[in-house]
Amino acid sequence: MLSPALRAAIAQHFGTPAIVVDLDRVEANIARLQALCDRAGIANRPHIKTHKSPVLARQQVEAGAAGIACQKLGEVEVMAQAGLDDILLTYNLLGEQKLGRLGRLLAERPTRITVAADNPVTVAGLPEAARIGGRDLGVVVECDTGRKRAGVETPAEAVALARDIAARPGLAFRGLMLYPPTGAPETTQRFLDETLAGLRAHGLEAPIVSSGGTPGLAEIGAIRGVTEHRAGTGIFNDRMMMAAGIATLEECALSVLATVVSRAAPERGILDSGSKTLTSDVGGLDGHGLILDYPEARITGFAEEHGFLDLSACAARPAVGETVEVIPNHVCVVVNMVDALVTVRGGAIAGLLPVAARGRIV
Amino acid sequence: MLSPALRAAIAQHFGTPAIVVDLDRVEANIARLQALCDRAGIANRPHIKTHKSPVLARQQVEAGAAGIACQKLGEVEVMAQAGLDDILLTYNLLGEQKLGRLGRLLAERPTRITVAADNPVTVAGLPEAARIGGRDLGVVVECDTGRKRAGVETPAEAVALARDIAARPGLAFRGLMLYPPTGAPETTQRFLDETLAGLRAHGLEAPIVSSGGTPGLAEIGAIRGVTEHRAGTGIFNDRMMMAAGIATLEECALSVLATVVSRAAPERGILDSGSKTLTSDVGGLDGHGLILDYPEARITGFAEEHGFLDLSACAARPAVGETVEVIPNHVCVVVNMVDALVTVRGGAIAGLLPVAARGRIV
Repeated sequence: MLSPALRAAIAQHFGTPAIVVDLDRVEANIARLQALCDRAGIANRPHIKTHKSPVLARQQVEAGAAGIACQKLGEVEVMAQAGLDDILLTYNLLGEQKLGRLGRLLAERPTRITVAADNPVTVAGLPEAARIGGRDLGVVVECDTGRKRAGVETPAEAVALARDIAARPGLAFRGLMLYPPTGAPETTQRFLDETLAGLRAHGLEAPIVSSGGTPGLAEIGAIRGVTEHRAGTGIFNDRMMMAAGIATLEECALSVLATVVSRAAPERGILDSGSKTLTSDVGGLDGHGLILDYPEARITGFAEEHGFLDLSACAARPAVGETVEVIPNHVCVVVNMVDALVTVRGGAIAGLLPVAARGRIV
Repeated sequence: MLSPALRAAIAQHFGTPAIVVDLDRVEANIARLQALCDRAGIANRPHIKTHKSPVLARQQVEAGAAGIACQKLGEVEVMAQAGLDDILLTYNLLGEQKLGRLGRLLAERPTRITVAADNPVTVAGLPEAARIGGRDLGVVVECDTGRKRAGVETPAEAVALARDIAARPGLAFRGLMLYPPTGAPETTQRFLDETLAGLRAHGLEAPIVSSGGTPGLAEIGAIRGVTEHRAGTGIFNDRMMMAAGIATLEECALSVLATVVSRAAPERGILDSGSKTLTSDVGGLDGHGLILDYPEARITGFAEEHGFLDLSACAARPAVGETVEVIPNHVCVVVNMVDALVTVRGGAIAGLLPVAARGRIV
């Protein structure tokens, strides 16, 4: 928990709501995730969608990460322009505008960039980016081993798409990308084994087999053949990660400093953090955040700048004007709400960290 | 619906997801809301939290609005610096940092600013802003007539707080602020009548009785004594307003142009608009938006940059690479996700409109 003196200083300098990141904890989290990957003999490719900051991405690389993952082309652009290298864009890139931007990035920067594809339309478009860029573009096939999101659903489709990629001018087949469900590594293993065998039968190799997810860190090493792991949330952690048993409260590096702005009735209150700060992401949890000072309080709902507090279970209750510290349900979307995070280190304010890759529309 | 040619031009220039605002419809909505207020003989004070744009706020004033409402001090600062006048901050302002900022704004700009308060702690802090500003600060008492959000719960509390305000140096009691529940005007009427009588008994007048809400426009004029109405969403409208019978599809001025990026199975698809674009605000509706091209499709959930489509009810289904137009559940939070909106007029791209007051952390 932020000390009373530090809270007062943050409120004094930046007001509330402030999205506060403890850099000591961030470094510990970065080191812990790197050590997990190192122990498993798997390359670490942190997903920067969580923080959108080249400064933190660089720290992750300096701690041993082999590269980074991005979820949007705008994130890739910001990271490449900041000098980050070996970027995996885990997204189907489509449309002339995006292919042109990717092509220009390939032409202007030496950055190693690999993109994901799960369908022939995406694959058919990518050579245009390679052509504009004047160099080959690496492509991995996104595979769905049970989450029912993006990704081909069968090994046969994965092999067919890999062959399609390998046959296209300007594209280099680089391997496979997975986001496996947790708790069922054997399903993913069967999919992966069959796909790799199918690739070999067609003379193709998969130098990259990228797995992902912060919850998946609990099973790291369980799927043979995986070469790297993408985890995003673990740099900060949140209430979802705590609920999943992935992180302790002491490993939560981000919190929202909020002020109680109304106490219209004994059992109710209002925080100055609503859906435009904590976001409506529920993540399967009860309530919209954990109030460290009043853990029995529930954030039951939101207006845009109001968080509605049910205090009926609280023995002690906050007064108007009191600041409270909230662990949000889902950090990745909370970071995305502001232009800068307030950073602290050693119990004192360190400064402001721009969320450099957020809000970009072109 | 955006024409195929306009969609292609937007995708070409800005890529997707693009948050698109039809300026012709915006003007029609502004005029319609103004006419509703005019007919009821009630001043129009649009709430700019929906658009956060001084350009649109100025259009609202030019169409006849008496002033504007803001939900955050950062919005007030942006609007005042852009020359907007008569601003009501519908929020309990607390803490030295915010009071100092408000004071400096009062000192540096001639803007008429009124703030809301629902408790004595807020009221006790406000004279400091007036002192720094070197001029009186208007204050209205926020009253809760049934929504159980912010606002005093009884007429007696409202009168006591008004007397507290009137007795403070630097503060001027300006009246009452309500956000009444819809469908029960008589409850609000009783609260208001009793409060106004109590104020008169203590020699206080309420020149402002501010009511609000876009849904509340359907009952405008139903509460005697209301002097002005604050509506935000109505400038753009959304799926919530359509579901509430407040707006037709033709009155929806904002949509998200999205691309189908994956179709891994016949009954499923993925949009490039996830919780970082459409937001997880559900608003009591089924699904996360209305896809105009495929109204039977459901957006069942989100990853951050993925919208999960259930296409099982659709006869025709979109192909990968196809663009679709989505009416979001709740426009106010969607606008807040980007630095700029794409504007169209007369069926052609007009330009980019900065969301000037978003993301501000200080």
